[in-house]
Amino acid sequence: MMEDAVSLGAVTLLGVLEQAYFSLQVIYARRKFSVSPPDTGGPPEFQRVFRAQANCSEYFPIFITVLWLAGVFLSPGLASVCGLLYLHGRLRYFWGYSASAQGRLAPLYFSAKVLWVLIGLSAVGILLTSLRVYLNVDLLQELGSALSPL
Amino acid sequence: MMEDAVSLGAVTLLGVLEQAYFSLQVIYARRKFSVSPPDTGGPPEFQRVFRAQANCSEYFPIFITVLWLAGVFLSPGLASVCGLLYLHGRLRYFWGYSASAQGRLAPLYFSAKVLWVLIGLSAVGILLTSLRVYLNVDLLQELGSALSPL
Amino acid sequence: MMEDAVSLGAVTLLGVLEQAYFSLQVIYARRKFSVSPPDTGGPPEFQRVFRAQANCSEYFPIFITVLWLAGVFLSPGLASVCGLLYLHGRLRYFWGYSASAQGRLAPLYFSAKVLWVLIGLSAVGILLTSLRVYLNVDLLQELGSALSPL
Repeated sequence: MMEDAVSLGAVTLLGVLEQAYFSLQVIYARRKFSVSPPDTGGPPEFQRVFRAQANCSEYFPIFITVLWLAGVFLSPGLASVCGLLYLHGRLRYFWGYSASAQGRLAPLYFSAKVLWVLIGLSAVGILLTSLRVYLNVDLLQELGSALSPL
Repeated sequence: MMEDAVSLGAVTLLGVLEQAYFSLQVIYARRKFSVSPPDTGGPPEFQRVFRAQANCSEYFPIFITVLWLAGVFLSPGLASVCGLLYLHGRLRYFWGYSASAQGRLAPLYFSAKVLWVLIGLSAVGILLTSLRVYLNVDLLQELGSALSPL
Repeated sequence: MMEDAVSLGAVTLLGVLEQAYFSLQVIYARRKFSVSPPDTGGPPEFQRVFRAQANCSEYFPIFITVLWLAGVFLSPGLASVCGLLYLHGRLRYFWGYSASAQGRLAPLYFSAKVLWVLIGLSAVGILLTSLRVYLNVDLLQELGSALSPL
């Protein structure tokens, strides 16, 4: 279990570090544009950084959840690769949104697509595991037997 | 472990899909009421949808956390049933809040109650596991022996 | 596994209860300062309570994530102690911020430091596990042998 999970753990930790980086950028933006807490208004430049971080924070638990669902129930390797793509997309989203509202769109759509892939992998993994647990059917093995000419 | 966890995994995935649905509703509401990001103000109709989604997002990690605590430390079946009730309550909350501020109240109280049940189940599960691990006392078994006339 | 995880489970549950307490304080503040949902503006006294809870909620998934990473991949005991320190820091942060914007700073820095310690423990744990899994090197054991005069 821990052997399989180590790549998921590494991607998760990378995700935490990315969130820490985004939080620091909000702190710098607060200083730069003189927006003291609890105020969250201010110039559009500040609001874009603030909203970019808020949006990433909001999706962080969903990302971690589907990363581990897909990793535990289907494939840790596949889930980890998707996880790295998602985190890269989020980094480009944060930088893009900080520059302009328009700049957030392309990487946002990319991140959303990767998230849907992880949701799909989770669904397949949970379905296969359910079939195995509740109906004692190992679909992957049966598929392998059916396709094998032996 | 994976056998017990598959129902928890399925409920978790359903929760992720529900969050995805809420996020899409905010995007539609932004278009309908012409509120472009990073702006989060706008007419009350938009703000209610925005706040409904924000509130569900805020509670999502807490829900997933207690779902798995209750499921792993006490009963995956019981936790999964509570999880389904919670997700149903949140759906009614989102629809209710989108319609009126008043409409959010009844399903909000219902969801909160289910969350407290999951917190209670988690507490019982952690207590029983602690007793077994640290004091070598299996309370459920002792209770069974005490109640059994044999 | 469940034996090691019970202290992590207990700290996690405590974290959930702390979040529940913060949420209740926001509800009381809404009543006290007559700020009805979906409005999130209002007097600074209300906004400080609202932002304090929002900030704690935002960090909750990150905290739970690194608590379990550090606990599963390195040491459940060490992670649990750090977890208790973090939750105590967050309680002082919430009370401090509710009183004044200045009052949030010292406990905020403290919580952030504890979070970095948990991130560091997670990184060490994931590194050691990776070495063991992928390179078959048990660094802790090798270090023990090197330091032992026998």
